[in-house]
Amino acid sequence: MKKNIYDDPVFFNKYSQMERSIKGLEGAGEWTTLESMLPDFSGKRVLDLGCGFGWHCQYAVERGATSVVGVDISERMLAVAKEKTSEEIVYVHEPIETVNIAQSSFDVVISSLAFHYIEPFEGVLGRIYSWLVGGGDLVFSVEHPIFTSEGIQDWCYDTNGNIRHFPVDNYFYEGRRETRFLGERVLKYHKTLTTYLNSLIQVGFEITGVVEPQPSESMLELDASLRNELRRPMVLVVSTRKR
Amino acid sequence: MKKNIYDDPVFFNKYSQMERSIKGLEGAGEWTTLESMLPDFSGKRVLDLGCGFGWHCQYAVERGATSVVGVDISERMLAVAKEKTSEEIVYVHEPIETVNIAQSSFDVVISSLAFHYIEPFEGVLGRIYSWLVGGGDLVFSVEHPIFTSEGIQDWCYDTNGNIRHFPVDNYFYEGRRETRFLGERVLKYHKTLTTYLNSLIQVGFEITGVVEPQPSESMLELDASLRNELRRPMVLVVSTRKR
Repeated sequence: MKKNIYDDPVFFNKYSQMERSIKGLEGAGEWTTLESMLPDFSGKRVLDLGCGFGWHCQYAVERGATSVVGVDISERMLAVAKEKTSEEIVYVHEPIETVNIAQSSFDVVISSLAFHYIEPFEGVLGRIYSWLVGGGDLVFSVEHPIFTSEGIQDWCYDTNGNIRHFPVDNYFYEGRRETRFLGERVLKYHKTLTTYLNSLIQVGFEITGVVEPQPSESMLELDASLRNELRRPMVLVVSTRKR
Repeated sequence: MKKNIYDDPVFFNKYSQMERSIKGLEGAGEWTTLESMLPDFSGKRVLDLGCGFGWHCQYAVERGATSVVGVDISERMLAVAKEKTSEEIVYVHEPIETVNIAQSSFDVVISSLAFHYIEPFEGVLGRIYSWLVGGGDLVFSVEHPIFTSEGIQDWCYDTNGNIRHFPVDNYFYEGRRETRFLGERVLKYHKTLTTYLNSLIQVGFEITGVVEPQPSESMLELDASLRNELRRPMVLVVSTRKR
């Protein structure tokens, strides 16, 4: 299986100490937005693509999902997920790009910040479409195309080290970006907004919501540095329904 | 009526000398994309919001529209439109924000690069929705939220005058931006992508296409400087249908 950064022990340990890893969903800035766009889980079969530590799977169980499957490429992440979350969740150690799932198996597919690690998007979407029943929901978050476009994913600073602005470059050149995250080299695949949204429409999804999360007033009060996140869009959350 | 930059004689004369003013639709970089997203005009009643010189109105007539109305705030633009385009087009000198149109009067509403001059977007969308018949189309282009966000709408250059990247800033602070266009001060109103797309969904439109135009290979061959437009998204084209 393809090597992935989340199985690198150094990276994994650093990632495990992030607020979103310790606090779970409440530690993720975009969670309030994502949660507001999720469908009712009650009585639903739910698939989580790129489930990581299984926080979203656990949430689905607690909201009444009848069965929950989490797919992730990282063995280390899944080991923690199995230990910390409900026993009824089924974790599958496979890449999103190649995992084999029978048609019409799920009512809801969710994916949190995983699709920007995947190169071929339209193919994956077509497969997700087949896994969903008619009227089923796909809700996902990704790093915003503006955030992945230039490559380095850092602000542009003035000579005093103050933020000047966020740089956009290479926008229409989709594909591989090498960035640094937690001090390690991480590969991502930039896609334009056109690719994300128009692929959904082409495959047959109806777009039911498009939101760029921003820090809430209460988050800004707790951490003033988050105010910088009002200066650029970092995450895109999209909700869709299979026709 | 509110003063507008297109009625300023100095600005108007400069604008009239732009390629898109002389050559019409073929001189506008985003036209190929916009055209590909337009519905069949044959037998349709078409409204063009911010019609300017009337190029899109004329196109609708030539494609078989049964009636075409163009609305624009600029008297000077409309004077040229009346002179140069088909007599059957009805031009209305009103701001998009306040023009009075009866319910269910149109099958198609188009708008080319006008909505970023308008501040209250959701209200205007609600009114467009009422003007359309059920199943009617709204197709529009706007300056991309990434292009309007920072405000100055210029690249960031290195000390040798070479382009470094395009700056993004102030993204979630919607509203008034003062930029320079053709050497004159021009007011625009920045909106996020969330505002553009989610307002459409809230009002009751189904999004049928979202495309960020990029220069074609043939355009790049004619003008190599256009290659810079592959580095940032400048325009957003959205097609929608009234449910």
